[in-house]
Amino acid sequence: MRLFSKRHQPPGTPPGTLHRRTAQEAPPSSIHLLDYSKHAVMEFDQPDLNEIGDRLNAASISWLRINGLPDADWMRQFGDLIELHPLVQEDILNGGQRPKLEPYEDQLFLVMNIPELHDGSIEVEQLYLIWHQHYLVTFYTGSEATFEPLLKRVRKAGTRLRSQGLDYLAYSILDLAIDMAFPVLESLGLELEELEERLLDHPDPSILHEVHSMKRVLILLRRAVWPQRDVINQLLRDEEGWLSEPVKPYLRDCYDHTVRIMDLVESYRDASASLHDLYLSNVSLRMNDIMRVLTVIATIFIPLTFIVGVYGMNFDRSASPWNMPELGWPYGYLAVWGLMVAIAGLMLWFFRRKKWL
Amino acid sequence: MRLFSKRHQPPGTPPGTLHRRTAQEAPPSSIHLLDYSKHAVMEFDQPDLNEIGDRLNAASISWLRINGLPDADWMRQFGDLIELHPLVQEDILNGGQRPKLEPYEDQLFLVMNIPELHDGSIEVEQLYLIWHQHYLVTFYTGSEATFEPLLKRVRKAGTRLRSQGLDYLAYSILDLAIDMAFPVLESLGLELEELEERLLDHPDPSILHEVHSMKRVLILLRRAVWPQRDVINQLLRDEEGWLSEPVKPYLRDCYDHTVRIMDLVESYRDASASLHDLYLSNVSLRMNDIMRVLTVIATIFIPLTFIVGVYGMNFDRSASPWNMPELGWPYGYLAVWGLMVAIAGLMLWFFRRKKWL
Amino acid sequence: MRLFSKRHQPPGTPPGTLHRRTAQEAPPSSIHLLDYSKHAVMEFDQPDLNEIGDRLNAASISWLRINGLPDADWMRQFGDLIELHPLVQEDILNGGQRPKLEPYEDQLFLVMNIPELHDGSIEVEQLYLIWHQHYLVTFYTGSEATFEPLLKRVRKAGTRLRSQGLDYLAYSILDLAIDMAFPVLESLGLELEELEERLLDHPDPSILHEVHSMKRVLILLRRAVWPQRDVINQLLRDEEGWLSEPVKPYLRDCYDHTVRIMDLVESYRDASASLHDLYLSNVSLRMNDIMRVLTVIATIFIPLTFIVGVYGMNFDRSASPWNMPELGWPYGYLAVWGLMVAIAGLMLWFFRRKKWL
Amino acid sequence: MRLFSKRHQPPGTPPGTLHRRTAQEAPPSSIHLLDYSKHAVMEFDQPDLNEIGDRLNAASISWLRINGLPDADWMRQFGDLIELHPLVQEDILNGGQRPKLEPYEDQLFLVMNIPELHDGSIEVEQLYLIWHQHYLVTFYTGSEATFEPLLKRVRKAGTRLRSQGLDYLAYSILDLAIDMAFPVLESLGLELEELEERLLDHPDPSILHEVHSMKRVLILLRRAVWPQRDVINQLLRDEEGWLSEPVKPYLRDCYDHTVRIMDLVESYRDASASLHDLYLSNVSLRMNDIMRVLTVIATIFIPLTFIVGVYGMNFDRSASPWNMPELGWPYGYLAVWGLMVAIAGLMLWFFRRKKWL
Amino acid sequence: MRLFSKRHQPPGTPPGTLHRRTAQEAPPSSIHLLDYSKHAVMEFDQPDLNEIGDRLNAASISWLRINGLPDADWMRQFGDLIELHPLVQEDILNGGQRPKLEPYEDQLFLVMNIPELHDGSIEVEQLYLIWHQHYLVTFYTGSEATFEPLLKRVRKAGTRLRSQGLDYLAYSILDLAIDMAFPVLESLGLELEELEERLLDHPDPSILHEVHSMKRVLILLRRAVWPQRDVINQLLRDEEGWLSEPVKPYLRDCYDHTVRIMDLVESYRDASASLHDLYLSNVSLRMNDIMRVLTVIATIFIPLTFIVGVYGMNFDRSASPWNMPELGWPYGYLAVWGLMVAIAGLMLWFFRRKKWL
Repeated sequence: MRLFSKRHQPPGTPPGTLHRRTAQEAPPSSIHLLDYSKHAVMEFDQPDLNEIGDRLNAASISWLRINGLPDADWMRQFGDLIELHPLVQEDILNGGQRPKLEPYEDQLFLVMNIPELHDGSIEVEQLYLIWHQHYLVTFYTGSEATFEPLLKRVRKAGTRLRSQGLDYLAYSILDLAIDMAFPVLESLGLELEELEERLLDHPDPSILHEVHSMKRVLILLRRAVWPQRDVINQLLRDEEGWLSEPVKPYLRDCYDHTVRIMDLVESYRDASASLHDLYLSNVSLRMNDIMRVLTVIATIFIPLTFIVGVYGMNFDRSASPWNMPELGWPYGYLAVWGLMVAIAGLMLWFFRRKKWL
Repeated sequence: MRLFSKRHQPPGTPPGTLHRRTAQEAPPSSIHLLDYSKHAVMEFDQPDLNEIGDRLNAASISWLRINGLPDADWMRQFGDLIELHPLVQEDILNGGQRPKLEPYEDQLFLVMNIPELHDGSIEVEQLYLIWHQHYLVTFYTGSEATFEPLLKRVRKAGTRLRSQGLDYLAYSILDLAIDMAFPVLESLGLELEELEERLLDHPDPSILHEVHSMKRVLILLRRAVWPQRDVINQLLRDEEGWLSEPVKPYLRDCYDHTVRIMDLVESYRDASASLHDLYLSNVSLRMNDIMRVLTVIATIFIPLTFIVGVYGMNFDRSASPWNMPELGWPYGYLAVWGLMVAIAGLMLWFFRRKKWL
Repeated sequence: MRLFSKRHQPPGTPPGTLHRRTAQEAPPSSIHLLDYSKHAVMEFDQPDLNEIGDRLNAASISWLRINGLPDADWMRQFGDLIELHPLVQEDILNGGQRPKLEPYEDQLFLVMNIPELHDGSIEVEQLYLIWHQHYLVTFYTGSEATFEPLLKRVRKAGTRLRSQGLDYLAYSILDLAIDMAFPVLESLGLELEELEERLLDHPDPSILHEVHSMKRVLILLRRAVWPQRDVINQLLRDEEGWLSEPVKPYLRDCYDHTVRIMDLVESYRDASASLHDLYLSNVSLRMNDIMRVLTVIATIFIPLTFIVGVYGMNFDRSASPWNMPELGWPYGYLAVWGLMVAIAGLMLWFFRRKKWL
Repeated sequence: MRLFSKRHQPPGTPPGTLHRRTAQEAPPSSIHLLDYSKHAVMEFDQPDLNEIGDRLNAASISWLRINGLPDADWMRQFGDLIELHPLVQEDILNGGQRPKLEPYEDQLFLVMNIPELHDGSIEVEQLYLIWHQHYLVTFYTGSEATFEPLLKRVRKAGTRLRSQGLDYLAYSILDLAIDMAFPVLESLGLELEELEERLLDHPDPSILHEVHSMKRVLILLRRAVWPQRDVINQLLRDEEGWLSEPVKPYLRDCYDHTVRIMDLVESYRDASASLHDLYLSNVSLRMNDIMRVLTVIATIFIPLTFIVGVYGMNFDRSASPWNMPELGWPYGYLAVWGLMVAIAGLMLWFFRRKKWL
Repeated sequence: MRLFSKRHQPPGTPPGTLHRRTAQEAPPSSIHLLDYSKHAVMEFDQPDLNEIGDRLNAASISWLRINGLPDADWMRQFGDLIELHPLVQEDILNGGQRPKLEPYEDQLFLVMNIPELHDGSIEVEQLYLIWHQHYLVTFYTGSEATFEPLLKRVRKAGTRLRSQGLDYLAYSILDLAIDMAFPVLESLGLELEELEERLLDHPDPSILHEVHSMKRVLILLRRAVWPQRDVINQLLRDEEGWLSEPVKPYLRDCYDHTVRIMDLVESYRDASASLHDLYLSNVSLRMNDIMRVLTVIATIFIPLTFIVGVYGMNFDRSASPWNMPELGWPYGYLAVWGLMVAIAGLMLWFFRRKKWL
């Protein structure tokens, strides 16, 4: 996850200018059309624009699912077909939008961020949802498999999804988009608890870097999911009848999930800041321990070494009786040992009294 | 208390899907039905669904109390019996909800978090309250004894609880749920003050870990009880007549308690952050002390040891009169001692002037 | 001041249950009744309930002043006499309430926190005010002398207090309650400035503990007085005519005082956090100084001591001309001293260039 | 600037009690009356109360300017003359008010804080403005020269000030009061940048104390000017016609200035916090450098000193061939030097690999 | 970027006083007039005031573009020509305004901050936009090339810009002004990521200064762009018909961009604070490492050096058999080596057990 992803056009570009991102950034798209009523389901793979036009206007519920990003030409033609505002076309092709809900004349345009786990690393993918009275169109930059559970429910006759209207389908897509954050948060939560355990068991400097990258992921994740709460809230307060009464409680449940996700992200941020503090405190405590041992050993031996140095001097005892007479004392050596043991003992007693040992 | 508790279903699961949590997570449930009017009390243990249906619709005040979590089948049948919204059924079986109040057609659904003390460790249990014009249903995941004081008051004739309506019972349950936080906070407060005393008396590194886990408990507790204030406030502003006038002051009192609880949690957070700072400051002060002693002893003896080293050199005095003539001086040895005493004295004076001693 | 003061009843206790706090917590109460009009003042000490009932209903302005906490029986009878809501009775006897204003049918119930200085330590006392159209009742847990200045003004004929109505008396009591915080804040401010001076003059570790306890007092004081602003504001916005027009500017002045008090508390918090930082910075600067001196002395003498050690070795010069020939050189000793002086000089130059000296 | 300035009266003092502050706190006042219309300007120095009464009621625009604080007697008589609310009189004599706007029956009462630079130190002075339909009265505790630029504009015929009404004069006074903060902020900004430069060039501990006192000044300045934004905003939203339409844009400009001032204060707070951090980081980096040099020198010479110590032992070689045979080897001395050079080289290589050098 | 830029006039200056900033601060201005309709484009370089007056009143869309700041005389005359409020004239010539929107009688006045990159350093330039029903006037202090892309679009026939009204031109200018922040943020983002990489690879103290100046740039950038969100929002909520319906979605898109910019700035602030922490943690970890090695080497060799010192003493063995008999033992030397090896081994084992190695 990058701090800044280059997804803006040069300042001064006319609004609605369409540039497809490079293939590297966005894989070629695949298009699927799902058309169902209570009794029947039809699926079309890679339909052409005519087919799409026919089906979207039919009475049944239609969901056009575009995976990856289409090229600019297709987008322009498709935009003309369903009268998509040029800014919406540009937003979709440019990517990197904040989650938002924008009402247009007879369409709602929603952008959602979906965090996906790919081999342990987190990617934030974008879902664009165009909601018209008769159909839904979604553009999704992430894995095609994400919508599989929903498709299974549509294909199975007799599910609530089949018997309810288009707004229930829209709710189901939003619900899926939001709930995709839970497995990601679960994996982050496990990682945090593992970090904590490792830190208490045997702290090593690599933990600090992991905590740092954890914090960075949480900064970006927060930025990605925070505005979703407002989007859902805005939709709940809608007064133009996009939502039927029976669907509202479901969307309220969705709203609860966005709040719970933000709660979790905030708790994780608190917890990782707390881990960082704890690690640094631990390091400084250990350093303290080490310093204490150094001090004790050094301060005991430094005076002793001085004493033995004294009796290593070569003053000429024959020159005068004042020159190191101790060297000639019969018990001089023992006396020096006694002195040194006394000094060491005294120091140990002093350190113990000061509680440095 | 875990940072993340796995209580979400895979993204894309149809809303209202019921999975009972494993037996390990949720013990088997016991069901009690309490039915009372001003004059009589009836209690039923483990009633079957028919009985329940009969009693709930009776004119008397009914409280169906389910302890632990029922299995999914029972839930589905019971949900059909009282026309419980599928999302409510799912929320109860999934658990891990934030405190919330949700109005349904002729029912209110409330979720509360109740922190319980079990042998010194804190568990956050959930209370689900379904409030219908004629009855209350509660699901509770914590200890069965929690409601005992309330039951005693119901069983005793002549109490205010017996003479008031269903809303007073609902209030009493919410009041109990909220007040359960006080003993928990009391125990945390005592722990904090004990930590502070230990820190001032004889700080040891284990305190840091205890402060850290205290902080973590407070993060989670805050997340658990913070939204309860909004729930009670929402209920107070209700305009559909769930609350009769005489009960409102009681609920306002409840609201005051939620505010006091949040005040206490915030003060504890401040106090534990302050403890953490104090501990680290203490450690760095002690390290400073130790360093000072090391410096003083080392800097006094290092030059002295150098001097005695000088006169331990073996230059051949016979080779030239310039080779260590001091060794032959009659008072050389005494002079060296004099020099060393002077140096040591000078240094002590310097350190004292610098206020390092 | 304790972080948590045990002032809650066990969860599940019926609301309105009255338990008098132990004598240790609350001294026995004394009761005074003040009854005045523009022309006359009457005072009753320890009146019985009948007297109280008579006077409160009289046309004059009555102020019933209860100091300390009454016992539960008296409270219950008095509550019946003036139709006091059971929750209010419970709140008063339990204590530990947050400042609040609660409207009841024909009474206002206000709780205020009054910080008092007792021999340099701060106690937060509680004032309960029951405001009825015809009388005021106050319960106060603090010193009886607190209201003396107000009583003097009542007893003196011709003061504004005597000529205005009951609301002016209520304002005067609230004003007194709020202004009691100023002497406390003044003493804290002086203490803070004294701490700062001591810290700049001769910092010693005890300052850190004093800053810590100052921070704790400020946490608790903030919790105690913060809600008073809302209480006064709520009263100002009252639409039921409790306040007459001429009294409103006075109460607005009161509101200003609550804001100024909060400003002061916040500034003190900032200032004490800043003191803590400054102290720690000072300590680490001093440690740095000490380390520098140690380093300079040690790094100068360590190589010198090595050199004198070399010429203290006892290699047998007679065994080979390669064994320590320096010892036999006529100017060997002087050369060694020259070498050592050169090394010491070089090092001093290096340290000075690095600005470590 | 003090944290707490004693400007409160003892709790329980009747509102409106007038005590003049001591002469030390408030110099004796001087009174000036300015009376102008489009065509004429009249100025009176030290007018008596009769004169004041006459002029204020005249049709021309009158501005009564009181510098310093009057004594309590004069205040009481003046208050009676213009029917000034007793609380306003008390506020002016007591001083230390927060900036505020208070509407009275036919007067507005405004309090503004004006920071003034006196020989490099900042004093917060107070301006009290009484705004009546026919006149303005100001009390100002600061330097008399502050209003000079404004007076010049009044005295000059043909200025906009002369042709506009009383509200334009009021705006001009407020504008002057607010803009007085800019020179103060400029001087603080220069000081901050100078501190930063000194810190990067040659950091010394005195900087820390200067940063600390800078932070304290900013805390107090923020407290002093923050509420002015609200005062101007309140005045802008006035619905009683104090402001004529053409003056409103000017006051909006004033409002912008208050916001810019707060922006600057906040930026300075951020910048000084950042300086504090940078200084501490610098100190710890330097300490790190010093430690590294100490370590390298000590760890290289400690083993070497040990080795030369070994060959300074006096074991009796004649007692046994096992006693220090090295001393008798022909190349023993050279071998020891070789060993020592090898050890030192190895250590240097190790330190370089570890990037400690 | 300076913390404080001297752009205020002395307090008390009459509002609307025009002083041109010095030539150093503001280069001489160039004036361009663009006049277009759907079918034709006319451009005038350095038109005189008469020409300007004629063209602005014509039916076509006119955009008067002033680069740099005009002198005070020209400003006054131009102000008279288009009836520009004196405060607006002063704001433009003084500079240093916060972004704001001010409605005047028949003009809107907008101030925007445009960050520009000049050789890697960031300058915040100001754009003043006067929006009248018939024309736009812009004053811009930055590079003339900034508006080039927009001019190209106007010159090209058939673009949306040509066919839409004046509000679309105003939107395009605002859009350009806001989008200028993206390249700046991109360059800051790259710098941040480069800093992070360098920090992890080979941290050196210069990084700290770069992080510090990065933080300072972000403080100033935040102050510069934060109020732009409010300006655009205020414009969106306009009820006087400045914006036609089709332009509103475009401006909403603009609003989204301001929010994204603020999001990025906040993330960068978090990220740079986190870098600072990481750097300091790294430094303290390295110091810890160094201390550990010092401790181990010193504590191993200090006792050994003491031992060899003991046997370097010169006690006279002939004086008594108690004087250093070890020196005469046949295996004394070997025994001492054995003792020293044992001590070193014991210490290494102790350090390893303590996990200090």
